Amino acid sequence: MKCRRCKALAAVALPSHHAGFCPDCFRKFFLKQVETAIRRKKMILPEDKILVALSGGKDSLALMEALTRLGYQPVGLHVDLKIPGSSDVARKTVEDFCSRRGLRLIVADMEEWGLPIPEVRRKVKRPICSICGKIKRHAFNRIALEQGFDVLATGHNLDDETARLFANTLRWDEAHMAGQSPSLPAENGFARKIKPLYRLSEFETAAFAFLTDIEYTTAPCPYSRGASFTAHKALLAQLEARSPGSKISFYEGFLERGRPAFQNRDSDKEQLAPCQYCGMPTSAGACGVCRVRQLLQQS
Amino acid sequence: MKCRRCKALAAVALPSHHAGFCPDCFRKFFLKQVETAIRRKKMILPEDKILVALSGGKDSLALMEALTRLGYQPVGLHVDLKIPGSSDVARKTVEDFCSRRGLRLIVADMEEWGLPIPEVRRKVKRPICSICGKIKRHAFNRIALEQGFDVLATGHNLDDETARLFANTLRWDEAHMAGQSPSLPAENGFARKIKPLYRLSEFETAAFAFLTDIEYTTAPCPYSRGASFTAHKALLAQLEARSPGSKISFYEGFLERGRPAFQNRDSDKEQLAPCQYCGMPTSAGACGVCRVRQLLQQS
Repeated sequence: MKCRRCKALAAVALPSHHAGFCPDCFRKFFLKQVETAIRRKKMILPEDKILVALSGGKDSLALMEALTRLGYQPVGLHVDLKIPGSSDVARKTVEDFCSRRGLRLIVADMEEWGLPIPEVRRKVKRPICSICGKIKRHAFNRIALEQGFDVLATGHNLDDETARLFANTLRWDEAHMAGQSPSLPAENGFARKIKPLYRLSEFETAAFAFLTDIEYTTAPCPYSRGASFTAHKALLAQLEARSPGSKISFYEGFLERGRPAFQNRDSDKEQLAPCQYCGMPTSAGACGVCRVRQLLQQS
Repeated sequence: MKCRRCKALAAVALPSHHAGFCPDCFRKFFLKQVETAIRRKKMILPEDKILVALSGGKDSLALMEALTRLGYQPVGLHVDLKIPGSSDVARKTVEDFCSRRGLRLIVADMEEWGLPIPEVRRKVKRPICSICGKIKRHAFNRIALEQGFDVLATGHNLDDETARLFANTLRWDEAHMAGQSPSLPAENGFARKIKPLYRLSEFETAAFAFLTDIEYTTAPCPYSRGASFTAHKALLAQLEARSPGSKISFYEGFLERGRPAFQNRDSDKEQLAPCQYCGMPTSAGACGVCRVRQLLQQS
């Protein structure tokens, strides 16, 4: 197969685009997809201060790399969860990535925040993955707002987004469908949130990471039973193999015609007020994360 | 495995209901599901004259059998498409089924209607399956209205309905989502349409047909490349195997929360008027089926 742009030998085949690219043209293609996402969904204004959540995995680091190459000056945010055998590697990966490229990095240490995940896991009876996710989103939002960032970017890719959409659709979960978007405005005490990789598949972000010499971590979390939506992703992969382009058209069609139908109906939103301890939005007096912190302090 | 109702040896295992049934209790279970569908979706009023479209396959004959066993007095309608090697068998199957049970049957002969499918296929350039479907629905509606039936019942099962819903959802096809329901009211010159088997899987209708000694035809149409939505059905079968009950909850959730969102938006419906030749509703002066008939007469 030849590169669609320059006719050199292709290194990356992309059936959903009926194309293959050589390494250099693939990097250009990738950046163009990110640019298109940012432009079409009005993700970033010229003067915006951008915070990028960096886990140390391929998606978040590829996003940071792409934004930098597109001329933005994003700041990294790493949440150190203090999970033995996983957090050390992740933090070092992110620190090395940022220092090598001269990028500013903020590290939020969950030990210092009174929320080390191993202890949370011991004390709280609910499934740890959902609490850990809540704590991470809390840290992202708090740092973004308190340190004056205009927008918080995460590395969710097309496979993440379509698998989540598929799960929401199977349940016809109106509230989650109304709230699923690659670009959510700032409101109710939440920072603006964007997903500039939503047009790119997991395969494409992995290829970009490889072709831009990104060293990322693949160490799995010892508390997790595997990535989320694995089975849904496998079903959608079959669909994509059968009709290339299915995933992006499912997702874009949802944004154009599906989501608006549910947004109109989502009129009875919860009333939110600042948490009495941390100031982050909550429907109770104290937010869920502060309540977990208190539980840990009591014992 | 034991029968859930009577503890005899089970003959049919139903993972989505976490149950197994002996033959007698399975028939009761099946009839109960049909009854539940009719009651919940207000499909049939006590005095309604019911017309059932009978292809000769397991679903339509199982539906006719179930309605009869539930005390209704449905009339059968078979559309003889005049396809060599397929229509003869289908017609004979339906005629035998009805005569053995003393049920009234109307046969609509497409030769007499000036619409034999082999000739339609020779003259019309578009894909034959979609035109043939249109002709059948036209015949169903015309006979129902002209002969004073209150409701037209078809044998669509849960697998048919979820596969169609999945296809509509992947495209976020608002109009088709607004129009998909197991119970459509009479309007705009269309008869009331119901699908009393929508809660039952293809496996369950096949089991009911087998356990009630229904002789049905499995002869494939020589013009078709196979059943519709085969690939979608395979994906949904995987989902169902992984989490039993997924299909019915996907479909019922759609009826409760998905469809209403699209119905509200479906305000710009086409204006329909009676066809100048047959009186059936159409957005043009002559309906699509009458135009096909004229094309055949011209040559």
